[in-house]
This record gives sequence, C-alpha cells and structure tokens, in this order.
Amino acid sequence: MTCWARFRTNEGRSGFGVLEGTALREYAGDPFDAPRPAGVTLEAGSYVLLPPCQPSKIIAVWNNFHALAAKLGKQEPERVLYLIKSATSLIGPGESIRRPRSYAGKIVYEGELGIVVGRRCAELSPGEAASAIFGYTCVNDVTAGDILNESPDFAQWCRAKSFDTFGCLGPVIATDFDWARAQLVTTVDGVVRQDYPLSDMIFSPATLVSAISHDMTLLPGDVIACGTSVGVGSMRDGSTVEVRIEGIGTLRNPLAPA
Amino acid sequence: MTCWARFRTNEGRSGFGVLEGTALREYAGDPFDAPRPAGVTLEAGSYVLLPPCQPSKIIAVWNNFHALAAKLGKQEPERVLYLIKSATSLIGPGESIRRPRSYAGKIVYEGELGIVVGRRCAELSPGEAASAIFGYTCVNDVTAGDILNESPDFAQWCRAKSFDTFGCLGPVIATDFDWARAQLVTTVDGVVRQDYPLSDMIFSPATLVSAISHDMTLLPGDVIACGTSVGVGSMRDGSTVEVRIEGIGTLRNPLAPA
Repeated sequence: MTCWARFRTNEGRSGFGVLEGTALREYAGDPFDAPRPAGVTLEAGSYVLLPPCQPSKIIAVWNNFHALAAKLGKQEPERVLYLIKSATSLIGPGESIRRPRSYAGKIVYEGELGIVVGRRCAELSPGEAASAIFGYTCVNDVTAGDILNESPDFAQWCRAKSFDTFGCLGPVIATDFDWARAQLVTTVDGVVRQDYPLSDMIFSPATLVSAISHDMTLLPGDVIACGTSVGVGSMRDGSTVEVRIEGIGTLRNPLAPA
Repeated sequence: MTCWARFRTNEGRSGFGVLEGTALREYAGDPFDAPRPAGVTLEAGSYVLLPPCQPSKIIAVWNNFHALAAKLGKQEPERVLYLIKSATSLIGPGESIRRPRSYAGKIVYEGELGIVVGRRCAELSPGEAASAIFGYTCVNDVTAGDILNESPDFAQWCRAKSFDTFGCLGPVIATDFDWARAQLVTTVDGVVRQDYPLSDMIFSPATLVSAISHDMTLLPGDVIACGTSVGVGSMRDGSTVEVRIEGIGTLRNPLAPA
C-alpha cells in the first residue's frame, strides 16, 4: 500500500508525493500517469498537507449502507443514487469547515469512504472499473441539514452539500487498500459517533464506478463519496470532527463559526 | 455587443475569438482577463465552433419562470432553487446529443438563457454580481425525463441531466446583451415549441449570481442556466432542436440514436 498526498511547503510551493511516516518523498509529472520520484524528501514541519487530489467533480452516493437504510426505514435502492457536490467545496486535512454567513441551522457530518478515480472512465464494466480506481481516501461529506427540505417542491441536495469548505478529503490516497476489511470511525471532539464496517455497503466501489461511468464520463482525480451509515449527527461551532479509516489515516477538520 | 466564440480549425488547432458575421477574429491570452487580438482572422469554412466556454460547473435553476410555475401549479420559490449538471455533459453548437445506451425513455429539451460568469464570485451583492457577468449564451438543458422520478425516495436531478452530451451551449457568448427585452424560441424540426419572454423570469441573472455566490464560489467560465418556461417536451431520435435568442444566435443540436 502506498499513501499519496499533496503538499504545500512553508515557502508556499505545492506538489505531490508519497507519505512515508512523517516524511514526504516528492514526485513529478502527472500523479495519475506514471509520475517519477523528484529526488527530494520533505521532512515533518516543512510542509502541510493539501487535499490529496483536485477533483473536477465530487459525486456523493445516497442510501448505500444496509444498516442506515434499515434504520431510516428506506427501501434499499435497485440502482446507484447520487448527487453532485461542487468541486469548490473542497478542503484538505486540518482545514476549517466554515459556517455559511447566511445560515444559522444544523451542520451535519457524514464520515465516508472516498474513491479516487485514476483514469478517464466511460461505460466501464465492474471489472474494468475496479482497475480504474486509483485509491481511497476519507471524506467528511458536510451538509447544511436545514436547507435540504426547506422547499416543499424541490430537495436541495446540491445546495445543502456544496457550500465552500463542505467537501473535506484526506489525509492521503491509499492504493491497494482492502476496503472490504476496513472499519470507518467518526468522532466529534473525541467521542465516537460512527463506527461501521465498509463491507456493509450495498453497491461496492467497482459497482459505483461502473454504474456512474454509464451516466457520465469520470476523469482522473474525480471523487466518489460512497455514502454514509448510522451515527450521522450535527456539529457545534468550534467542535472538531475526525473521520478515521485504518490504512488510510485520520481526516480532522474543525467547524469554525461564520 | 460582442460575440465571443471558441473554435477548432480544420487542421485541429483550437482557440477563441470574436465572431463577426462568418469570420472569426482570433484573440490570445485568458478569455476572461484582458485577452488581446492575435492578428489572425479565420474565414468561414476553415473552422467549426466549439462550446463557447469551458465551465468548471454548470448550475441549472429550477422553477424560475412565472408562466411555468402557474402552469404546473407550483408555488413560486422564495429563494433560488438549483441543481448541478456535470461539466462533462458539455457539447457545442452542431454537435449531436447522444441517447445513453442504457436508456430507452423520454429525452426532454429545455431552451434556456445561460449566464457566463466572468470572474471569481464569492458572497457578491446583486450589484456586484451584475458586473461579474461576462455575457449570455443559449442552453439546451437536456434531461432523461423518465429517470427523474424513477426512485420513490430520491429525485435524480443530477443523474437525469448529467449524461454526456446533455449540456448544449452556444453558439456564442454575447456581451452587453439586454436579456430583459429578448424572447427565447425553441423549435423541434422547425416547429415552434417554446416562445417566451426572458423578462418573465422570477429571479434575474444578477440575483441568481448573487444568491448562488453566497452558497459556493463561482469561477470564470462557469455557467448558470436560468431555468425554462412553458413548452418543454420530448425529442424523437433523429430530430433537431434549435434554441434561438435574438442577439445571441441559434444553438442547433440533433438527437442521435444510441
């Protein structure tokens, strides 16, 4: 397993490479097309991590865990259901989620597994889709909960989930990661709020990539957030949410007041 | 009024410039940041038009015309309602809309005014938003109509509208265009199906840009499709839809079978 990350040095230079402990071995070229070692290693303290990729789109899957569907009394979907989250919502590990100035309501965390697409995908079979997955990251798919059903006629999924800073990704992209054996744990200020096995997913990552690639072309670096399970809740201003998946790491983001 | 377009020459070189009759005066630099004449004029027949911009996101507004709200018996919205259409849905004038191989149902046209954003927009007032609009284009916001309400629990707006080739834009971006005096006409195989005044809009372009900029950052080249009015309908395979706005031009796209 390799952990890919993007970084910014204390001097303001950004790039990408492989995280080994706390040192970052820099690479050059296209991260999704045979990048090569740049011959530079950054030591801890000389850089901060950025979001691990720069998606052209973020797709958020809805109702993809057996336990959550059962708890909400929703029928399990026959096919993949999803919405698009604006790519401008993106933040990385350690960055603050900002409460929108125009919004005083509930801000909801959702800890999720994120798929990072490694190549252009159109109409792929599940087998082809499996090999098009570059790796996996942690996602906090943040939602302005009170906006979702504010209109009686139109569910505002895109708006509620697309505020700047509401798409938290990181800390790294782990390749060759065995998602089916991993557990996802979300904590708020250190208290465990979600603790669920990724194997409870209704549609596997390869099935998600295949299904969505029949609707629209996926591009290298695009992210599919696989949906969340039980334990979703709201965060108070000033609290810190951590989404942890063993083998990928911990994505930590505080909620700053407006 | 200036009409900006993107082109590809018969030799395969692409670029952008100003359309004057059938000749295209090429420009260089950033189209949204003081581009300069390149000193080259392309004559008719030596180039084809591409989509007039390359949006990072396409936002499609829902229920934004008085006449359509009245016809559908929907309450007029108190605030702007919208969804995100994947940018990979983009095609330009003359290109074919493709029926998804996986879908045999209705394919619906919606003729709309498109706003092209000219600069980075975050939390703009309506006055500031007005000056952040670069210009206007025609949109055919294509929808796989039978997918929208296929699931009883989740309206699939993003999926139904994001298929590759379902975001038709063009032929040009008209600057200094007086949208409030313009009429939009949609024809299918030459028969008029929509013919409505843009002044019937509930939220004006400046209000749309301002409202959405309080939710998410808009980037230069992003497109907001202002919503459609009465006369929406479906297209048969092989038929051609034209969306015409006087002062901008005619956007023509056939629907090719899968």
